Amino acid sequence: MSQLKNDLLLRALKGEELERPPVWMMRQAGRYLPDYIKIRNKYDFFTRVETPELATEITLQPIDQVGVDAAIIFSDILVIPQAMGLQVLLEEGKGPLLPKTVHTQADVDALITTDVEERLHYVMKALALTKQELNGRVPLIGFAGAPWTILCYMVEGKGSKSFDKAKQFCFTNPALAHRLLQKITDVTIQYLKAQIKAGADTVQVFDSWSGMLSPADFKIFAQPYLLQISDAVSEHAPVILFPKGSWYAMSDLSKSSASGLGLDWTVTPQQARKWTNSSITLQGNFDPSKLLGPIPEIKKSVKEMIDAFGTKNYIANLGHGILPNVPVDHAKAFVDAVKEYNKV
Amino acid sequence: MSQLKNDLLLRALKGEELERPPVWMMRQAGRYLPDYIKIRNKYDFFTRVETPELATEITLQPIDQVGVDAAIIFSDILVIPQAMGLQVLLEEGKGPLLPKTVHTQADVDALITTDVEERLHYVMKALALTKQELNGRVPLIGFAGAPWTILCYMVEGKGSKSFDKAKQFCFTNPALAHRLLQKITDVTIQYLKAQIKAGADTVQVFDSWSGMLSPADFKIFAQPYLLQISDAVSEHAPVILFPKGSWYAMSDLSKSSASGLGLDWTVTPQQARKWTNSSITLQGNFDPSKLLGPIPEIKKSVKEMIDAFGTKNYIANLGHGILPNVPVDHAKAFVDAVKEYNKV
Repeated sequence: MSQLKNDLLLRALKGEELERPPVWMMRQAGRYLPDYIKIRNKYDFFTRVETPELATEITLQPIDQVGVDAAIIFSDILVIPQAMGLQVLLEEGKGPLLPKTVHTQADVDALITTDVEERLHYVMKALALTKQELNGRVPLIGFAGAPWTILCYMVEGKGSKSFDKAKQFCFTNPALAHRLLQKITDVTIQYLKAQIKAGADTVQVFDSWSGMLSPADFKIFAQPYLLQISDAVSEHAPVILFPKGSWYAMSDLSKSSASGLGLDWTVTPQQARKWTNSSITLQGNFDPSKLLGPIPEIKKSVKEMIDAFGTKNYIANLGHGILPNVPVDHAKAFVDAVKEYNKV
Repeated sequence: MSQLKNDLLLRALKGEELERPPVWMMRQAGRYLPDYIKIRNKYDFFTRVETPELATEITLQPIDQVGVDAAIIFSDILVIPQAMGLQVLLEEGKGPLLPKTVHTQADVDALITTDVEERLHYVMKALALTKQELNGRVPLIGFAGAPWTILCYMVEGKGSKSFDKAKQFCFTNPALAHRLLQKITDVTIQYLKAQIKAGADTVQVFDSWSGMLSPADFKIFAQPYLLQISDAVSEHAPVILFPKGSWYAMSDLSKSSASGLGLDWTVTPQQARKWTNSSITLQGNFDPSKLLGPIPEIKKSVKEMIDAFGTKNYIANLGHGILPNVPVDHAKAFVDAVKEYNKV
């Protein structure tokens, strides 16, 4: 394994004092990049995800073209329901669809929890190939969905404004919900460990729908499983937790074994530092819509954001995935502004 | 005007000590009620909104059938874009659609700001008729959308996951955005005053999409206009502000001229009381999805919620609109649990 030439991300996760924070963007390997669109026009979603050469090419695009300080493997959180035996359909431009959803004890019992590494071998191959192609330029991030978010899709079968069917499942049959969450957790731990073995330098756990839960329900249906994953995986590599919308959980999660905590843009840096007692590396939290504004405004706002977070224990990122309609030079302006910090 | 037999809501907004809090539910006159569905099957959305007899009948249904302590007039926040000259289409089961959206100075200048009372005469007629039919049983709530939320629809033309076009408009042309927000504010103030004159005992301002804004942008594009409305209208009747998702604004808004502040379910009662220094009446914040759970659980959670908020300066409500798939007896269990508080 080649030595990393740019290890800013890993040093930020260790809490080292840095000249400037590392920067990457959620969904950086995605639809705002014309070269990604070219690949998308030729291959359907799961072909892109399941063909290591394509996943690698897509993963590398923003490193070469936008200059981010980390690569995140091109994949999808819904490979876990697939590995557990559920069909996942993804039509371009529409959300995901799981034709068979999970409702009964028999449905939960039927879910497969073994051989994750073999079932998702194409992800590990893509990680290994990307690692090789990166040749130490920047660290490689692996990822998975959090158990609550995966449960949402397994029960609901698709995206939702309120995920009320998923919540109804949890509220009416909490024992079965916990059984399902535990199965997803077990698989996710195996999966993240395999990703690290294959070359991921750090892993992020996306709890995209945790903000739908009240603070009390988050503590019941989301937090325990995030902590289990963090505890099991952080021995192998640093873990970043991103429970989107769950600002109320930041204090608790800052005391966990995780090295990083992702934030959306509804939290001020000052408030986030206060809640987390400056004890964990924070990642975020630029409003993705701000990248649609003028470049001078982007640069000014990035500087203000770093001024407020500081350069220690901080990873510059968006507060959610980059939007498909962001011009590439605006994305680049965001990255450049972070890189120029402290140079002016 | 007949004396109110049940004035719990108004006393709660005044901060009086009460035996139990008043209770109503956002979207209580809506799709979970079979009698509403019957009317919906006969008349399209704007016929229901624009025919005072139908709006009144729909408004009264939850008073008679679910037993809430307040009526809220059946209408829609998008009557304001209509009154300002924009066409609004609403197809059943789909979201709203504004075929002509607002982008340029000319678009903003073309918006009508006069004669709101005449343009929305059917709302005032529905309020007057409902007031008469209520015959003092419970107070009547009027409402409007907040300027930021109305801007979202005017610019975007429809619902959105991120309202990034609306934000882009604000970030790239803030002067024009403020001009638009001010026009909407002026119209909304006239509209709410007219509603009070027509019979509304209190009014609520729904900022349904304020939670999409960062704390800094909320202070620029949402808060000043909420405060203007509150200041202008609260001389005439108590104002309730509901900036959904904007937990970060609670402290500031608690110092405003508003009498009440709506909360979604991501805030604990303890945290909300702390942020607002117990200086304003809080309204909320039951997770609407919880009404899909078992009745004993609903009743238990309602009791816990009131225990935490207390009976002073508190209005029991959901944290967002009631879901269409809630069984009526579950909605009734929610209301009954509030009414039974302190009786057991």
